[in-house]
Amino acid sequence: MSADKVINFSAGPSVLPLSVLEQAAAELVDYRSSGMSVMEMSHRSKHYIDIFDETKADLKRVLKIPDTHDILFMHGGATLQFSAVPLNLIGRTGRADYAVTGNFSDLAKKEAKKYGEISVVCSSEDRNHTYIPAQDEIKLSDNASYFHYCCNNTVYGTEWKYVPETGGVPLVCDMSSAILSHPVDVSKYGIIYAGVQKNMAPAGMAVVIVDKSLAGNELEITPKLLSYQVMIDSDSMHNTPPCYTIYMLGLVLKWLDSQGGVEGMQKLKAEKAKILYDVIDGSEMFSGHAEKSARSDMNVTFRTSGDELDNKFVKEAEAAGFENLKGHRSVGGMRASIYNAMPAEGIKKLAEFMQKFEVNNR
Amino acid sequence: MSADKVINFSAGPSVLPLSVLEQAAAELVDYRSSGMSVMEMSHRSKHYIDIFDETKADLKRVLKIPDTHDILFMHGGATLQFSAVPLNLIGRTGRADYAVTGNFSDLAKKEAKKYGEISVVCSSEDRNHTYIPAQDEIKLSDNASYFHYCCNNTVYGTEWKYVPETGGVPLVCDMSSAILSHPVDVSKYGIIYAGVQKNMAPAGMAVVIVDKSLAGNELEITPKLLSYQVMIDSDSMHNTPPCYTIYMLGLVLKWLDSQGGVEGMQKLKAEKAKILYDVIDGSEMFSGHAEKSARSDMNVTFRTSGDELDNKFVKEAEAAGFENLKGHRSVGGMRASIYNAMPAEGIKKLAEFMQKFEVNNR
Repeated sequence: MSADKVINFSAGPSVLPLSVLEQAAAELVDYRSSGMSVMEMSHRSKHYIDIFDETKADLKRVLKIPDTHDILFMHGGATLQFSAVPLNLIGRTGRADYAVTGNFSDLAKKEAKKYGEISVVCSSEDRNHTYIPAQDEIKLSDNASYFHYCCNNTVYGTEWKYVPETGGVPLVCDMSSAILSHPVDVSKYGIIYAGVQKNMAPAGMAVVIVDKSLAGNELEITPKLLSYQVMIDSDSMHNTPPCYTIYMLGLVLKWLDSQGGVEGMQKLKAEKAKILYDVIDGSEMFSGHAEKSARSDMNVTFRTSGDELDNKFVKEAEAAGFENLKGHRSVGGMRASIYNAMPAEGIKKLAEFMQKFEVNNR
Repeated sequence: MSADKVINFSAGPSVLPLSVLEQAAAELVDYRSSGMSVMEMSHRSKHYIDIFDETKADLKRVLKIPDTHDILFMHGGATLQFSAVPLNLIGRTGRADYAVTGNFSDLAKKEAKKYGEISVVCSSEDRNHTYIPAQDEIKLSDNASYFHYCCNNTVYGTEWKYVPETGGVPLVCDMSSAILSHPVDVSKYGIIYAGVQKNMAPAGMAVVIVDKSLAGNELEITPKLLSYQVMIDSDSMHNTPPCYTIYMLGLVLKWLDSQGGVEGMQKLKAEKAKILYDVIDGSEMFSGHAEKSARSDMNVTFRTSGDELDNKFVKEAEAAGFENLKGHRSVGGMRASIYNAMPAEGIKKLAEFMQKFEVNNR
């Protein structure tokens, strides 16, 4: 099977490895002589349980997840976790701390207010989320049940370069647009969650990595499917899970192994991001949205001298085969999301296009 | 692409039309020369919005959904609707009525108790859910916000042959294992919801058809993604929806058109079910679980003279290419789920197998 693929910089759902798509296509009708599509398998069947268990084991191995933590496959993406996190954890003290460094951490904070007292303990809103507050700018409250932050801000193109110290308060991290792009010391976290539609799989699921000792404290009003304890006890099968999405995650994890795992991705993402940031820094037309110290390796945000030229850039880029480069409306300009599956070749082509565009539009 | 497919009687996830799977495989890597997989498309992109809008329009047309109602694509399957229904509706009076005629309606009732006062207004538990209560056995309470029932009981193999009269109380129906199998007068219902993994698409989503005048009454603690009003206002895109699942539903709806729509399915399902019920009724070995008046056309439950022979049947059937015939643990015996995509040919083969099995094991 061949494909004339565009270069897709979508922030999510986003590009998947071509070899993964080709394998999924090849075994879609009849999965490995089982006589069924994975889409048709009972989630309780041996065929499917094998896929499920292997995917879970691969994720545990790739991220070196300790036995203190369990992996949950939950419905609803990261946004449903904005509700699930407080529903499960805030009951311990009734309070929680939130760092607001972008669009999604702000939405998470707003949702959490339904369930307890929320303190914004640091924010980058004063400079339109172009930076990440330093550790000594975080003013932890007393007696928080947990500290929540989003380690990579997809919309603004910034990332936390450090893991915040919280003095024993459980750390909860929305890792949607960074997971599987670098090694993580999972033992530092109470909860890591991620919508899968960026670095993991097609949209429609969240991976939640939960310190099992934190489960079992959910508020009584917690919908059963949002209870971490229920999901731990049922191994994510209290109801029918998004079976095919889990299968796709399994294929992506095998591909990740072939690329050197998260260590390989960490090296590659730094190289890939540098290509674009070098063009921006060497340009008289392009400028980045994020301050240099906070630049994300996953989402590169930039603009030209004005909205009109930005629009021209996006339009001409699309005609040249570069899709989804328009920035989020709250930032404007352009955004190139360069997740794991974006080949360096695609980024080099964009860099060349940017340089030509500058020459042609001086 | 050819496939040596088994005959798959799984209760869900379940068999999908072969032509749908073949089309999905053919366009998985590069959707209709877009240069992208549907899995890779931004949910805000024109390519994807076209798929989304067409799927929604096809479902509206197929089920003749009136303009008073909206179609929502929601995360989490029917089980998350067990929470969403009371969270959205029970605030009106604090009370709701539930009919308990099987496993899932019982689970729905238990979940609803978190959010208000629940009355079980009829139940078939006294005879192990082998029947459906008649209209005059339903003792409606005063001032219920809604009446909830499950019109087809997957586990027990029974179905409601009538739409309950509730005297103006909004009717809420879990239609997971019956949707798209017959015409429905949607105007009679406040809410119809269905997990998609039986007659619609791969697992991981619920379709919710909601009378818009009922939305906007959610409890303050409702997770944002479970609010019908939020979903109506955002056209199911408050966050990234399960995009690929919606695409698959679109393919299934096109296939449904080619089979005569829900009218065609209604005719076919009666014929298909009759083949198996005729074998059961003509047999000295097999007996049905459901009373004749309540038999489901979607899930045929039956058993032999004992557990040992049941196990032998399931084992030999599997060896002969009939998968997932083992009954649910709460009923025992066997269950043949014969949803829309199960060809009549597969059912005829099972009928022959049953008759041979009886001869060989007299």
